[in-house]
Amino acid sequence: MADLVVVGSVALDTVSTPFGKVSEALGGSATYFSYAASFFAPVHVVGAVGEDFPRDHLDLLQRRGVDMEALEVRPGKKTFRWTGEYGFDLNEARTLETQLNVFAEFRPSLSPRHRAAPFLFLANIDPDLQREVRRQMTNPVLTALDTMNFWIEGKRESLLGALREVDVLLINDAEARMLARQPNLVKAARAIVELGPRVVVIKRGEYGALMVTGKDFFFAPAYPLENVFDPTGAGDTFAGGFMGYLAQRGLTDPASVRKAMIFGAVMASFTVEDFSLERLKRLSPADIEERYAAFRTMVNVEP
Amino acid sequence: MADLVVVGSVALDTVSTPFGKVSEALGGSATYFSYAASFFAPVHVVGAVGEDFPRDHLDLLQRRGVDMEALEVRPGKKTFRWTGEYGFDLNEARTLETQLNVFAEFRPSLSPRHRAAPFLFLANIDPDLQREVRRQMTNPVLTALDTMNFWIEGKRESLLGALREVDVLLINDAEARMLARQPNLVKAARAIVELGPRVVVIKRGEYGALMVTGKDFFFAPAYPLENVFDPTGAGDTFAGGFMGYLAQRGLTDPASVRKAMIFGAVMASFTVEDFSLERLKRLSPADIEERYAAFRTMVNVEP
Repeated sequence: MADLVVVGSVALDTVSTPFGKVSEALGGSATYFSYAASFFAPVHVVGAVGEDFPRDHLDLLQRRGVDMEALEVRPGKKTFRWTGEYGFDLNEARTLETQLNVFAEFRPSLSPRHRAAPFLFLANIDPDLQREVRRQMTNPVLTALDTMNFWIEGKRESLLGALREVDVLLINDAEARMLARQPNLVKAARAIVELGPRVVVIKRGEYGALMVTGKDFFFAPAYPLENVFDPTGAGDTFAGGFMGYLAQRGLTDPASVRKAMIFGAVMASFTVEDFSLERLKRLSPADIEERYAAFRTMVNVEP
Repeated sequence: MADLVVVGSVALDTVSTPFGKVSEALGGSATYFSYAASFFAPVHVVGAVGEDFPRDHLDLLQRRGVDMEALEVRPGKKTFRWTGEYGFDLNEARTLETQLNVFAEFRPSLSPRHRAAPFLFLANIDPDLQREVRRQMTNPVLTALDTMNFWIEGKRESLLGALREVDVLLINDAEARMLARQPNLVKAARAIVELGPRVVVIKRGEYGALMVTGKDFFFAPAYPLENVFDPTGAGDTFAGGFMGYLAQRGLTDPASVRKAMIFGAVMASFTVEDFSLERLKRLSPADIEERYAAFRTMVNVEP
């Protein structure tokens, strides 16, 4: 098992969907990522919270063995907050408010141990910060990056710089089209491969995820669920399962990357079944194995 | 190889997409279906055209070995015509005009040979006609049915009657929700299984197709294409590959049905690459095998 470092947000989310609402619930890209990845490999969070961040939330991650030595708790500051809502089309979140708070002045500085980690996930934050973290790493075996429309539009040059330094880009379909300035998804993914990452993973919500490399495709369906409550964190949980599995195996060969896609889809399928990390909190390794088997059956022509 | 009968439309389509336009091109559900199925098994078309139907189109189907003994050419009548358009979201067709013409008074009467066929496809037509054909069949091994919002809304009772007499329903996702009156797709599919068909195949355009049985799921992705020109006929071509493969094997066991889903997706992936049947006309059995292998690779964790 190899060490896995994630830099991203640890946040308090207020989310409403047609099925309910939560206020100031545990959220953030690094939170979902690290919780999911903790089922697979030792994971280290780089980030910052304010002094208002509930102790219970830190305990929750610590009980999963997540290392939070590099999660700064800043006195006198407030935690990052996101408020969003979903309509019946759960594929699209509407952001109502973002309070960067402590994250606005966050400047990561990694310890020698973190710098030496072979697996790195740059969650969806300012590409300047993503590059700063990447630069501090000694020689990672595999670096993956997530981003969003806000940075594609607002910090394109910095993002392009970050992309040249990563192996895998995880991105949703609309953002892939926006980044590549190309409406066809396959052409968009191939154009992105030219920008740096050798693997592009396109997340399509309830329609699954498509991986595009130079010439290959791999498709991981989404699990057909009878009840989807809240898609918040699904993409970060996917990344957690994906990177967690690769770090666990210490491998980056094509077969391992394909299996990692399935584990990503498996973990995301749990997250959306409840608000915040509620479903993940009830999760056992046996649940993960069982759903992985169900995913395999779902695409296997020999049932 | 077992005989396969299809009842449906043989039509002249006028279609515009963001990529071009065709006028009075060969179309119709039975046309796409039979052309695709002809690569797998002996297929027999039950339908009607007017005396204006171009001889070339009949020759085209005949060269593929499609039996058109039961395709009535009605003197003094006009062929069924459909005019539609697509925007950049190619998943949704907008019907501009439908002229039933000869189809309005079509009353199928099957020959003894057709009645004895073991495989039957009831393409998207009036459910009264679908039932009329089903009733004439001796004892089919497998009957599949396609339908659309127009019949779900306008002839619900007759459609429910038809569903009780079929094994497989092929339907798109919005129509599955409409038929079951249930927004969640998995619940909708399971509700439809209670209505009669033991297998429900939900077509989701560029997102692939999902098969739901009592407890199982099977997922066939759509092939990621760099150029999609016209989705007209994709669903009927899918059905042609699906039913054609089953008729070729003469089997209806779960593994064969799963392989049939992939052959359906393979055939549909060709149809959308050009207008009308243009891509299918250039198709060789080797092309089909090659793309089938590509589909398998696309979901196989051992690349």
